[in-house]
Amino acid sequence: MKKRRKLGRGIALVGAGMSNFGMYKDKDSKDLFVEAFQDMIESVDKGLDPNDIDALYLGNFSNDFFMKQSHWGPIMTDLLGITPIPATRTEGACASSALAFREGVFAIASGFYDIVLVGGVEEMSKRSTAEITEGLAMASVPYEGKAGFTFPGVFGVLATAYFAKYGATREHLMNVTIKSHNNAPLNPKAQFKVTIRDLMNAKIESLKKKGVPAPQWEDEKDFLHDPRANPSIAWPIHLYDCCPISDGAACMLLVAEDIAKNFTDDPLYLIGMGQGSGKGLHAAENLTSFEATKYAAEEAYGMSGLGPEDIQFAEVHDCFSMAELIHIEDLGFFKAGEGYKAVEEGLTRLDGPKPINTSGGLKCKGHPVGATGIAQLYEVWTQLRNQAGKRQIPIKDLRIGAAHNLGGTGGTCTLTILERR
Amino acid sequence: MKKRRKLGRGIALVGAGMSNFGMYKDKDSKDLFVEAFQDMIESVDKGLDPNDIDALYLGNFSNDFFMKQSHWGPIMTDLLGITPIPATRTEGACASSALAFREGVFAIASGFYDIVLVGGVEEMSKRSTAEITEGLAMASVPYEGKAGFTFPGVFGVLATAYFAKYGATREHLMNVTIKSHNNAPLNPKAQFKVTIRDLMNAKIESLKKKGVPAPQWEDEKDFLHDPRANPSIAWPIHLYDCCPISDGAACMLLVAEDIAKNFTDDPLYLIGMGQGSGKGLHAAENLTSFEATKYAAEEAYGMSGLGPEDIQFAEVHDCFSMAELIHIEDLGFFKAGEGYKAVEEGLTRLDGPKPINTSGGLKCKGHPVGATGIAQLYEVWTQLRNQAGKRQIPIKDLRIGAAHNLGGTGGTCTLTILERR
Repeated sequence: MKKRRKLGRGIALVGAGMSNFGMYKDKDSKDLFVEAFQDMIESVDKGLDPNDIDALYLGNFSNDFFMKQSHWGPIMTDLLGITPIPATRTEGACASSALAFREGVFAIASGFYDIVLVGGVEEMSKRSTAEITEGLAMASVPYEGKAGFTFPGVFGVLATAYFAKYGATREHLMNVTIKSHNNAPLNPKAQFKVTIRDLMNAKIESLKKKGVPAPQWEDEKDFLHDPRANPSIAWPIHLYDCCPISDGAACMLLVAEDIAKNFTDDPLYLIGMGQGSGKGLHAAENLTSFEATKYAAEEAYGMSGLGPEDIQFAEVHDCFSMAELIHIEDLGFFKAGEGYKAVEEGLTRLDGPKPINTSGGLKCKGHPVGATGIAQLYEVWTQLRNQAGKRQIPIKDLRIGAAHNLGGTGGTCTLTILERR
Repeated sequence: MKKRRKLGRGIALVGAGMSNFGMYKDKDSKDLFVEAFQDMIESVDKGLDPNDIDALYLGNFSNDFFMKQSHWGPIMTDLLGITPIPATRTEGACASSALAFREGVFAIASGFYDIVLVGGVEEMSKRSTAEITEGLAMASVPYEGKAGFTFPGVFGVLATAYFAKYGATREHLMNVTIKSHNNAPLNPKAQFKVTIRDLMNAKIESLKKKGVPAPQWEDEKDFLHDPRANPSIAWPIHLYDCCPISDGAACMLLVAEDIAKNFTDDPLYLIGMGQGSGKGLHAAENLTSFEATKYAAEEAYGMSGLGPEDIQFAEVHDCFSMAELIHIEDLGFFKAGEGYKAVEEGLTRLDGPKPINTSGGLKCKGHPVGATGIAQLYEVWTQLRNQAGKRQIPIKDLRIGAAHNLGGTGGTCTLTILERR
C-alpha cells in the first residue's frame, strides 16, 4: 500500500436491520430482504421516506446457483417500491455484502449520492447439503474447489498447520465454540439460541427417553470430544466447529455525514475501511494467516489512524472456530500464535476486555453468506448504540467497534471500523 | 431524480483493451482477461506499472452458472500479479461491466483510490445452447424467466408492440441487422466479420456445391425474408435479429483527472454517467421503452449538461435488432416511433450523422455478457482517439461519444458519456 487512504466526504450510518437467520421453508430471498428492510426502517430514529433513497447495493454470493435466479438488484428495488433508482449487486463470496457496504460508501463519498441503502441476502437451505457444498466450493479458487477441496477441508488444513506451529489442540477450538454458543441465546435473531451445555443436556434427555444409557459427560468439552455427539467433518474440524447453512438478509442506511442529523441524533460514523485480495491456499506462504486480511487491516487502520488496541470489540468471520483464531491474530488483537491462549483465558468473552462475536458469530447467529458482512455490521451498530439487550457489552464508554468479513479461502477480506461520537 | 449529480473529483480514461470475441474451445476466462489486459497495457501511451493499480472491479454475469466458478475478482488479481489489492465483482446481468466501470469511477471520485482497473469477462460457449438459454433467463425477473419467458421471446413481444404502435415491419429490423453487419468486417476483434451479403453469397455457394438449386435472392432483405436462410426464433425475431453466444473480456484503466497526463497526453474524460433499475415486463406500462434507460439518461445528461443532440455517436445494447430501435429512442437520439425511420434513412450508418454501433454491435462484435459494457466503452475510446482504422467515423472533430448497456429485461440500464478534449 502506497499511501494513507482518505474519503473526500464523511459517511454516517443512520439505520440498520436484519431478518431472523435460520433455515426457512416458507420464506424466500424477497421475504427475508423485506423483513430486514422493515427492521431497518424502524431503526431510523427520525424516520425515512424510502423515496429519498438514491441507490441500492446488494451483496449476494450465488443465488444464481442456489436459486437459479440472478440479477437481484432490480428485483429488490421493485419489491421495496423504489424503482427506478440504480441497484447494483456485488459479489466477493462470503464477503459479498461487506463489498456492498463499501460501494455504498464510495458512491456517497464521491459526491454523486447522499442516501444509499446497502444490504445482503442469501437463500441456501432449499438445496441439498451436497448441492450447497458444491455451490460454496465455487468461492474458492479453481485449484481448490475444482480439485475437490471443500471448506471444512480447507479449515482442517489450516487448523493442522496452526496446531503444529503453535502447539494448540482441539480443546482450543472448543473454547471458541463454547464462547460463541454462550453469546447466541442472548441474540433473538440468532439461528442457534442454545449453549453447548443446553445441547449436551438435551442429548442426555433424548437418549434417556429412548431408553439408551446416557454417556457420563463431565462438561462441555467432554461432550464435544465424544464423536457420537460431535462427529469429525475434516479433522480436526468437527461438527460443532462449523457454522450452519442459513437463509437471511440484512441492510443498512448510509448517508453523507452532513445530513446524518436529519435521520437521528445518534448516528455512527465510518472511520476505517479496508479490503484486500488473496491468492488462495495453493499459493499461501503462511497457512496460519490470510494476506487479504492483513492488507484490509492496514488500509482500515491507516484510514482511521487507529491500531488494533483501539478496537473495543469486533465481529470476525468465524465460518469455522479455527477461522476466528486466525482472524484475531491477523487483525492484531493478539500476537501470532497467541490467539488461542487469549480465548482460553476468556479475553474474547462478552464480559472480557476484547469481546469477539458477541452476536454468536457465524457459528451460532448463522451464515447466509451474502448477508453476513452487513449482519456483522448490524451487530456493531446494535452494540455501539447500546441496544444489544442481554448481550450488551459491559464496557463503559463503548465507542469503537469493527467487523471483519472473509470470502472464499481468503480471496476477499474486509475490515470496517465504526465509531459512536 | 432530485438533483443534478456531480462527482467530487474528475475521472480520466487512459487505457483500454479487449480480447477478440468469439466462441473458443481453447481459451477460458483467465486467458481472455489476460488478452484484454495486455491489449490495455499496450494502449497506455506512457506506460503503466501494474503495481500502481489500486483496485480491480470486474463485471461478470454468471460464470457461477456457466463455469461453476464464482468469486472471480481475486482469481484475476492473482493472474495479473497484483494481489493483494482489492478486487470486487459487480453483477447486473448483461450490464455487469458497465457497473464495474461505475464503481471504479466512484472509488476514485471518493478520493480513496487514484488508479483503478475495471473490466468484464464471460465464458459462455462451453455450455450447450439449452443451458445458456436457461442461464440467461436467470437475468430476467422471476415472473418472466421462471415462467419460461426466454430473451428472444421477450424481444419478440416488444417488437410486436412496437410494430403495432408505430407501423414498423420486419424489414425495419432487417435494416438494423444489415447496418451492423456492414460495420463488423471493419472491426478486427468482432466475432462475425461478414456482411449479410457475404452470408448470402456463401449460402448460394454452399448450395451450389451440394448440387442444390440456389434460391434467386434479389438482395439482402430477400435473403433475410427466406425462412430457410433466416428461420424464425420468436416472431418477429428471426435468427439474424439475435446476437450470438460469445466468450470474451475487456478492460479499462481509470485514473484521477489530476494524474491523467502521467499516462497519456491524450486521455478521455468521463463527463456523464447514469444508471437506473426497471421492474421487468410484467409491470411495464410501456412495452416500447425501458424506464431504466430513461432514468440513466436523465442522470447522465444531467451530470454532463448535455442533451442527446450533443452525443456524436454511440454504442447501444443491441442484443436483438429490435432493442437498438428502442434504445435510440429512449436515449433521445430520435423521437419515439421514429427510430426505425432514422435507421431506414441511413442516419445511424457509419457515415451517417449519428453513427450507432460502429463496432458491429452486440449483434456482430459478439456479446460475452459480462464483458459487453466495457467492450462498448472500448469502441467509444477507439473512435474518440481516432484509432478505429477502416471503421473510423468520418465526422470531423469527433469529441463526444456514449455507451448504453442493458441488463435483463431492462432491470439494469446505464449510460456513460466520454469526451476527448
